[in-house]
Amino acid sequence: MTLPQVNSARLMETLETLGRIGETPEGMQRLAFTPADVEGRRYVMDLMARAGLKVRVDPAGNIIGRIEGTKPGLPAIALGSHTDTVPGGGKYDGALGVLASIEALQTLQDLSLSPIHPVEVLDFTNEEGTSYRRWLYGSRAMSGLLEDADLKAVDDEGVPIGDRLKDVGGDITRIQQAVRCPGDLCAYLELHIEQGPTLQQNQIPVGIVTAITGRVALEVSVVGVANHAGTTPMNSRRDALLASSSLIQAVSAIAAEEEICRVGTVGMVKVSPGAENVIPGRVDFSVEFRDVDMQRLIQAGRRFRGLCQSIMLTSDVEVYVNEVGVTQPQAMCPRLSQAIHGAAQKLSLLTASLPSGAGHDAQSMAKITDAAMIFVPSVDGVSHSPLEYSDPQACVNGANVLLHTLLTLDETLD
Amino acid sequence: MTLPQVNSARLMETLETLGRIGETPEGMQRLAFTPADVEGRRYVMDLMARAGLKVRVDPAGNIIGRIEGTKPGLPAIALGSHTDTVPGGGKYDGALGVLASIEALQTLQDLSLSPIHPVEVLDFTNEEGTSYRRWLYGSRAMSGLLEDADLKAVDDEGVPIGDRLKDVGGDITRIQQAVRCPGDLCAYLELHIEQGPTLQQNQIPVGIVTAITGRVALEVSVVGVANHAGTTPMNSRRDALLASSSLIQAVSAIAAEEEICRVGTVGMVKVSPGAENVIPGRVDFSVEFRDVDMQRLIQAGRRFRGLCQSIMLTSDVEVYVNEVGVTQPQAMCPRLSQAIHGAAQKLSLLTASLPSGAGHDAQSMAKITDAAMIFVPSVDGVSHSPLEYSDPQACVNGANVLLHTLLTLDETLD
Repeated sequence: MTLPQVNSARLMETLETLGRIGETPEGMQRLAFTPADVEGRRYVMDLMARAGLKVRVDPAGNIIGRIEGTKPGLPAIALGSHTDTVPGGGKYDGALGVLASIEALQTLQDLSLSPIHPVEVLDFTNEEGTSYRRWLYGSRAMSGLLEDADLKAVDDEGVPIGDRLKDVGGDITRIQQAVRCPGDLCAYLELHIEQGPTLQQNQIPVGIVTAITGRVALEVSVVGVANHAGTTPMNSRRDALLASSSLIQAVSAIAAEEEICRVGTVGMVKVSPGAENVIPGRVDFSVEFRDVDMQRLIQAGRRFRGLCQSIMLTSDVEVYVNEVGVTQPQAMCPRLSQAIHGAAQKLSLLTASLPSGAGHDAQSMAKITDAAMIFVPSVDGVSHSPLEYSDPQACVNGANVLLHTLLTLDETLD
Repeated sequence: MTLPQVNSARLMETLETLGRIGETPEGMQRLAFTPADVEGRRYVMDLMARAGLKVRVDPAGNIIGRIEGTKPGLPAIALGSHTDTVPGGGKYDGALGVLASIEALQTLQDLSLSPIHPVEVLDFTNEEGTSYRRWLYGSRAMSGLLEDADLKAVDDEGVPIGDRLKDVGGDITRIQQAVRCPGDLCAYLELHIEQGPTLQQNQIPVGIVTAITGRVALEVSVVGVANHAGTTPMNSRRDALLASSSLIQAVSAIAAEEEICRVGTVGMVKVSPGAENVIPGRVDFSVEFRDVDMQRLIQAGRRFRGLCQSIMLTSDVEVYVNEVGVTQPQAMCPRLSQAIHGAAQKLSLLTASLPSGAGHDAQSMAKITDAAMIFVPSVDGVSHSPLEYSDPQACVNGANVLLHTLLTLDETLD
């Protein structure tokens, strides 16, 4: 018997079509709430309707396409991701997950296969958080995780987020109604590009996400004394940049050498006063540590603070460390992950288990239902860039694994 | 016999009066060519006239106050400095040298003492170079050191420097005539605050400058690959900031530990793209080395380039080093320095010889005549700051050493 397979040409065509909406020479610009985002969402809704899904938009702006199951009263299996992009992003991040989900249901329709469970395809609002710096907005709304600050967010032009939600069919006054009732859903599956190099480097077509890494974000200020670069002898200096450069290396060492946590990054640095002939008096920089184990994150933060204490003594500077954000790691559901593995085996595709270093809607959804993620290789591990690329075979493999995981779950879930 | 001494109250009063012109809570704002600068210059010209000097402004905007000597045909002894300031500067940098020079001649007038040589007091245009980033403008004009770029400079608003020179009585079409003829001058003396901590730390009231340090300025670009801070494993990173932090430490080590040159500074850093969750793909930073020995400067630059080569191999980044400026060190005249030492001894003031880490008009003037500099202590070595301070006794000591050096030279120079 031939296994059902998605229509690979159709999947790639939808990816290309959506990829032209908001496309510029500097990459995708389908930022949440912009006209390009609205146009992309309209295309998604059309595809959903064509696949036989009943489409609605919840008060958080999430697009929900649903078919009912053959056996009444069962909870739904949800598939999804997002279609907004970062500025200058790629065509695959988010889009692949949404379009492969629709393609899977279109395939079932083509084959006249009707699942027992209701199935929903979800396209979440503002996953990237580029708009309002409020990421995973739609999935957090659905999972009851929005905080007061999410509701009151205002952009640089003073426009409240509620105004922009209207542009995508949302309604902030009813946003509580976006939260799904217990028992509505029995599973959430998300297909996504890896955004890292591991699968490509190991020539593995299918990744199964063990956990989405947590993150501790710090703001660090190093305060020394600005002074004349010509007249101040080396032994009289209190150079904030020199002290900071040690701490920047320490962040890397905590991950790479001491292996306390998986990754550590300094991405943003501001040097004051910032003149070539003035010794820096102050340096502000960001630090983030990520790991799937919260204990390791706490240990990394503790180690970094210890090194800040040391540098205060040795470099005669003040160091202020402010914790600006903690995201708990989120484990994926082992039972669903096992179903993904089984589906890949059926399709003769090798799998590897790996953590996700990036955040995903699946981490919100895991708070209200079992959730799992399928990764496909990203060429050179590049994402959030016009160079982001996953080849057609990788995309089609992912869609087929998603389809067969759905079929397995439909047969095996209560 | 009592030694002639300057009128300390009068000197401090002129310093305070000039210090109120362009004063703000954020420090002095007497930037070259601004209305505050013009007002300050007018005050200086009034003081010169009161001291019996004949005042003119040369085509470079330099103020020249002159008295003729009693013996005809001798070259002039020049004393001077500048009265423009950096943004947020102090009351002493430059101003002390000009006002003490005028006070010295006012003292001679009070005592009816007439020098044999002509004596000139010089107030140089745009020493700080804050305007048009063309420093030592007036003294370089007088020494024939202006380059084409100096004449064609245009500010951010598109105003050519020639237009602004008119505001201070200059005339760029005749600027060649600002160059002094050989034999015009036989000496240049400049009193200045140290701007560093050495004299205060050693409790020495008078510094004699051995040389003005040279400077090699580099622009460095480190290019790696920007990537996702969560999904890119530590061993797959090409982090431009991590590599740069090693180079920033190397600049300091070349001066402080390896003692190849006197000082090395990184003052300006730009990290791109500069987001907290993106590994930096590019870092641009400034490097400068200063020393009184050009060989040591060359060696420091060579050592730094060698370390850049190493980091390219170990960190898998590209490093581009561009030399953007070389200022040769300038030795001061030993004979004039000896005269300063003798004058200080007469006044029972201890002296110390030290290099100047900052640039001064004396380095231009040394190209056309013998030049020497007198330093007085800066409290905590602070300058270019509202906190810049030299106490009244320090200022008066400096003025008296200047007066007696002038008297010695007047007697001893041909």
